[in-house]
Amino acid sequence: MKAIVRIANEYRLRLYPISRGRNWGFGSRVPVESGCCIVDLKRMNRILEFNEKNAVITVEPGVTFEQAAEYLREKKSSLYLSVTGGPPDGSVLANALERGAGVGPLGDRAKYCNGLEVVSRVGKIAQFGLGPAIEGLFFQSNLGIVTKMSVWLTRKPKYFQLLFFAAYNEQELVAASSAIKELQQQGIVRDTSFSLWNVYRFLTAQIQYPWEAFGGKVASPKELLEHLPKTWKGVQWVGFVGLYSPSLLHAISSRLLVRRAFRRKVSRFFIIDPAIAHVGRLLQKPLHRMTRVDVGKMLEATYFQSVFLGYPTKLQIGSTYWRKRGTVPATIDPDRDRCGLHWIDVALPFDGEDIIRVTRTVEEVAIKHGLEPMANFFNMNQWYMKSFIVIMFDQDAPGEEDAACQCHDELFATLNQLGYSPIRLGIQSMVLGAPTEQTYIELVRRLKQMFDPNDILSPSRYDFRHRWSRPVDKAQSPS
Amino acid sequence: MKAIVRIANEYRLRLYPISRGRNWGFGSRVPVESGCCIVDLKRMNRILEFNEKNAVITVEPGVTFEQAAEYLREKKSSLYLSVTGGPPDGSVLANALERGAGVGPLGDRAKYCNGLEVVSRVGKIAQFGLGPAIEGLFFQSNLGIVTKMSVWLTRKPKYFQLLFFAAYNEQELVAASSAIKELQQQGIVRDTSFSLWNVYRFLTAQIQYPWEAFGGKVASPKELLEHLPKTWKGVQWVGFVGLYSPSLLHAISSRLLVRRAFRRKVSRFFIIDPAIAHVGRLLQKPLHRMTRVDVGKMLEATYFQSVFLGYPTKLQIGSTYWRKRGTVPATIDPDRDRCGLHWIDVALPFDGEDIIRVTRTVEEVAIKHGLEPMANFFNMNQWYMKSFIVIMFDQDAPGEEDAACQCHDELFATLNQLGYSPIRLGIQSMVLGAPTEQTYIELVRRLKQMFDPNDILSPSRYDFRHRWSRPVDKAQSPS
Repeated sequence: MKAIVRIANEYRLRLYPISRGRNWGFGSRVPVESGCCIVDLKRMNRILEFNEKNAVITVEPGVTFEQAAEYLREKKSSLYLSVTGGPPDGSVLANALERGAGVGPLGDRAKYCNGLEVVSRVGKIAQFGLGPAIEGLFFQSNLGIVTKMSVWLTRKPKYFQLLFFAAYNEQELVAASSAIKELQQQGIVRDTSFSLWNVYRFLTAQIQYPWEAFGGKVASPKELLEHLPKTWKGVQWVGFVGLYSPSLLHAISSRLLVRRAFRRKVSRFFIIDPAIAHVGRLLQKPLHRMTRVDVGKMLEATYFQSVFLGYPTKLQIGSTYWRKRGTVPATIDPDRDRCGLHWIDVALPFDGEDIIRVTRTVEEVAIKHGLEPMANFFNMNQWYMKSFIVIMFDQDAPGEEDAACQCHDELFATLNQLGYSPIRLGIQSMVLGAPTEQTYIELVRRLKQMFDPNDILSPSRYDFRHRWSRPVDKAQSPS
Repeated sequence: MKAIVRIANEYRLRLYPISRGRNWGFGSRVPVESGCCIVDLKRMNRILEFNEKNAVITVEPGVTFEQAAEYLREKKSSLYLSVTGGPPDGSVLANALERGAGVGPLGDRAKYCNGLEVVSRVGKIAQFGLGPAIEGLFFQSNLGIVTKMSVWLTRKPKYFQLLFFAAYNEQELVAASSAIKELQQQGIVRDTSFSLWNVYRFLTAQIQYPWEAFGGKVASPKELLEHLPKTWKGVQWVGFVGLYSPSLLHAISSRLLVRRAFRRKVSRFFIIDPAIAHVGRLLQKPLHRMTRVDVGKMLEATYFQSVFLGYPTKLQIGSTYWRKRGTVPATIDPDRDRCGLHWIDVALPFDGEDIIRVTRTVEEVAIKHGLEPMANFFNMNQWYMKSFIVIMFDQDAPGEEDAACQCHDELFATLNQLGYSPIRLGIQSMVLGAPTEQTYIELVRRLKQMFDPNDILSPSRYDFRHRWSRPVDKAQSPS
């Protein structure tokens, strides 16, 4: 890696390192600017260290979520790595660097990793714990190439329960989210363990577009909802909360408090525990007929092989085929199959009112552009939530790509105006989403000058250069 | 503040900002280099914002722990701010910037704060959540003056218990610490809620030096131990673990697991709950006679007005008078009263073997220099511990200061050699404790060049300039 960076500096070759290239919805493996050489790190896929007692795993950029989970399973470890809902073959290290979020404890991965090794023009930098902390500079940045990272692991809980609820109106949502926030402040619900879906997003994770019902044409999103099975009528949000307990007695105690917090506030909620989950598995066929929800599939993904417990899932990424015609292929690859996908990630306070405001904005803008409004919310901690907003389309359907791009830009700008700032950017939003503060922008330029004076690393990626007062001075040698 | 920095830059005046100047044992308010103007921020003591629902408080540099606790009490808040064992009139903001550690949940304060506002030559910088993270640059650094910070608060637990144990030998200690680590990985014990004292450190927090027993002369540390009351004979370590529960049933569940984890491993442990604490308070006089430990005082400090629950305490800082003759004054001020105090903070893995190795090293070196070996250990998280090593002496006693300085330097070097690296430095150790990696040292120099080109802010404080390849170039104007 050092040699590559040295040679690239010598010949002023622009490099665009990718780990696994699975940054779907944010540009996948496509450089922000053209004229870059892709540096594909997927063969740097060694697990360099693992320590059961200390609950840490050290990985290279190419190590995937699936690979890490498989490795821990083989070692018969009592530990697991928090996974995302995204591609199982995505890079653990790159997800952390993007400040991606995992499900369950330690999901705010950028907080729970260390031992970074960074290659840059100024030399190799490794971690330390004294003096000004510079690790932060290499998250969402183009200042160096991170070649190694230690990620912290979670001990499997003795007892796992899953709270499921459906909110039928805004009052129910406000009540549910404030109950969960309160439970989290008391330590019953853990960070990054509450996942909320608006009904459209939930729907697209369950089924493919019902083309036959609408004669092969795109229906309006409202019509789509009317097409829902009876059991789902009127549902506006669906929520899942993982409950991790060190003993059965703790689990019962938590269940009592959760029940008390939800009772008479939300009309439909239940807590899945091992007994109920097994019954559900036995009765999956009649339940499927009754609810038109594939209960078996849902139980696998949320309980038995739960994302909440570190099992990578293909359930959500399959939904990238939502607007495609034909069935979802065995090997999911939205890039190859021209599935259109735009992501928007914004931060919002952990407050029902804000969830409602974001959902309403997404609905308004997406429906205007003839697209399904999809929003997911996730408690990063008791202080703030992350919203994952998805725009799905078919790259092969005439006009859809234009509509989706317009929808993305309008939604992005509107949310930003309302104070819901982006916290992660795609190649389509690097220019739209820059922080407002000019002092910071200039600092980024000067850091770029310091770490990458020839400006060869991933130009325009999180460097906000469209707002720089002047370009980096390439003549300058590293001082 | 901006004006001060501008003027100082113009006239090349060196500034040394202090918030409260309570950095006892690390140099208090004394600049690392001479010729600095003290910028005393203690009158910037406003609590700028507080939000009960969101559990955040925003403070200026002069806000003290006592002031924040008082403020929350007045507001009848259900929240508290994790406090240190240090001076109640220390600065909340400065403690976070030094990467100080608080007791109980959210004690790793540098992780649980945001909204920094920094004044530097490059302008005022405020927080953001996108692109490279630069906040880390202002912790343990001299790159800017932090004038504002938001700190996260903890909800009071419904039920609080305190595990107390004494370890009589190394096996017991290893068993206890591995049990606590396991309980922490299961989520029963929270981060920064386990405090372990070696017997000397515990002793000095209980009593003043027993001058009369040794005819006014300093006895050897071993003799001192023999002077202990019978109940304490043979104790080598004393540990406290806060147990925070959201309900009585949770508390009982946790107690069962803690008991099971400790039974037959540690010969003396008990769990203080509200009932036991009240009985202890009633019986404090006979208990005091029996154990020679001031049970009433200890219960106040650890349970009723517990540091584990955000009550600032003077108990530990009173011990800075350990070697002084005469009683501890009503207003504690070790600087005024010439109490000698050197601190060493190192990191170690959360492992009994490492705790033993650090304790043995401290004992060996301190006893050689005729000083009591005092070490405190604290679980920053399930991965690593912080050790607070204290060297106490009397600045007025001939020869003690020299011995203490020699002891400090030898201990510091020995621990570092054994791999226990410092994680916080005093003005006496800025040169001794620099990180080994030269790439990092040069980066700090270049950051200094960028943020403070006239080199006027706290020179030599956490900048490791004795290892710089060259000084910052003062002629350069900010680019």
